[in-house]
Amino acid sequence: MILTVTCNPAVDATYEVDALVAGEVHRVRAVHERPGGKGVNVARVLHQLAEPVTALGLGAPGFAEQVEALGVRARFVDALPAVRRTLVVQDPVSTTSLWEPGATARTGADDDLVELVRSSLPGSSGMVVSGSLPAGLDPALPARLATLAVEAGVPVVLDLDDAPLAAALERGGAVLMPNRDELTRLLGGEPGDLVAAAGELAARNRAPVVLTLGERGLLAADGAECWHAVTAEAVPGNPTGAGDAAAAGVVRGLARGDDWPDLLGRAAALGAAAVLSPVAGEVDLDALEEFAASVRVGPVSSMEAKV
Amino acid sequence: MILTVTCNPAVDATYEVDALVAGEVHRVRAVHERPGGKGVNVARVLHQLAEPVTALGLGAPGFAEQVEALGVRARFVDALPAVRRTLVVQDPVSTTSLWEPGATARTGADDDLVELVRSSLPGSSGMVVSGSLPAGLDPALPARLATLAVEAGVPVVLDLDDAPLAAALERGGAVLMPNRDELTRLLGGEPGDLVAAAGELAARNRAPVVLTLGERGLLAADGAECWHAVTAEAVPGNPTGAGDAAAAGVVRGLARGDDWPDLLGRAAALGAAAVLSPVAGEVDLDALEEFAASVRVGPVSSMEAKV
Repeated sequence: MILTVTCNPAVDATYEVDALVAGEVHRVRAVHERPGGKGVNVARVLHQLAEPVTALGLGAPGFAEQVEALGVRARFVDALPAVRRTLVVQDPVSTTSLWEPGATARTGADDDLVELVRSSLPGSSGMVVSGSLPAGLDPALPARLATLAVEAGVPVVLDLDDAPLAAALERGGAVLMPNRDELTRLLGGEPGDLVAAAGELAARNRAPVVLTLGERGLLAADGAECWHAVTAEAVPGNPTGAGDAAAAGVVRGLARGDDWPDLLGRAAALGAAAVLSPVAGEVDLDALEEFAASVRVGPVSSMEAKV
Repeated sequence: MILTVTCNPAVDATYEVDALVAGEVHRVRAVHERPGGKGVNVARVLHQLAEPVTALGLGAPGFAEQVEALGVRARFVDALPAVRRTLVVQDPVSTTSLWEPGATARTGADDDLVELVRSSLPGSSGMVVSGSLPAGLDPALPARLATLAVEAGVPVVLDLDDAPLAAALERGGAVLMPNRDELTRLLGGEPGDLVAAAGELAARNRAPVVLTLGERGLLAADGAECWHAVTAEAVPGNPTGAGDAAAAGVVRGLARGDDWPDLLGRAAALGAAAVLSPVAGEVDLDALEEFAASVRVGPVSSMEAKV
């Protein structure tokens, strides 16, 4: 059983309209709603791969039921008055996003989540903590959750940004998965060579680091070696959710005890297969097999940050 | 006690953004939410006037609690999976509206609402049924509710459009309050003289008709006489909710047994005071007193439809 943790869940809503024009009144033709947040997306990908998974996190009344309606086992702390919406207004020529800021978590929500994770870890084979935090919570909460997993001997992956990522690096011991922008913010400036940066970060972290580089694939460093995985050709499509699919691949490989080249190739194929899916939290399974067969993986000694 | 009935409730949400641009990602600075729908707005205006009021209608889990949080007594049939949102995206230079279509009401919701209204009518002094219907309901439902009130001797006002308005006219006996566009659709074409049109409509309806004419005020006909009420000067501001405030004025006057000129002047002043309020379902109470003192009311024998 793999655990995913979503501290800042969202309801992903899509409005279909004829043409979005600022200043006008629009009758929305159709509304689609789906529970989301990065950890929920990771759980949905794992579920699609027939991997037993439980989605954990901070939620609001009714949110866990919405996740379970998708077939994913879910346990969420009742922490928020309501789950924020991430609204996409879709017309035939444009995609406009409006992200609600979300509510402040109630006092004690963090301790309740720690207890939920602690009680869920026994018997688990891997854990991913993904995404941002609601207002009012200690940025070190994901690092605190990761330490529980490390102490329980469960491999743990963190897909974080800003202060939570910095707090996780300071504590060390969990696999970090920053993208290019998150890495730059973490380092306080542009990296020179990505392989060197990943290696140094892994050494500071006392655990592997996986950089998610979009069309340039994945770069993993464990402080001694560095591997690169990329699909044979660039994949056009919707990059939203590609990082979540890659995180699903990494945690699944760690849970199975795969070696890094195998694990990284599979994770890169998953990321590419997510790009082909119009919806975050889903992968194109046919394309996944093709990408997994053709992905190029190998050791790498240097990689220019700028292309 | 006055009753309001809202068959198609809404949650009025406002997003504050820096600048809405189609195709871009926006972080919403603030979200404001308020339970709405035309009947709820009427109830809020009556509550602001210290008039005892109960908001009835079709709702979803939690909706009645949201209305009661505004101080208005509320009883809603659990009829919908969720209440639709009417979203306004507000930036410094534009106001963009996105209206969700709303869910289909469950089978039997109409009969449950009929029972709720029937059991609420004893001891009531007036009733207003306002707004549209969720999908899946008989358009004659508001007319059916109005007949219950007529049979109980309770004055009833209907603020409807399209098929529900046509069904109410066919049944007759309730005060109808169409605006200019609703009247045109009801008649199947532009009226010539508004006084003649209102008089003929009242005769067909076997009950008074009040036309809401925006800056041109209110026109009431009971089949024998016709009165016009208008504020001394045009009022600039937000016309959303002005019709709801006018309906609150009409039902309140009918509940008190006021004569038509008094009732109509007060209702016109309420509509104008609502225009000065930035939020539907609220009136500017200071302005209301001024408008009530200066409103011009009198009999009228003809009024050009076109200006």
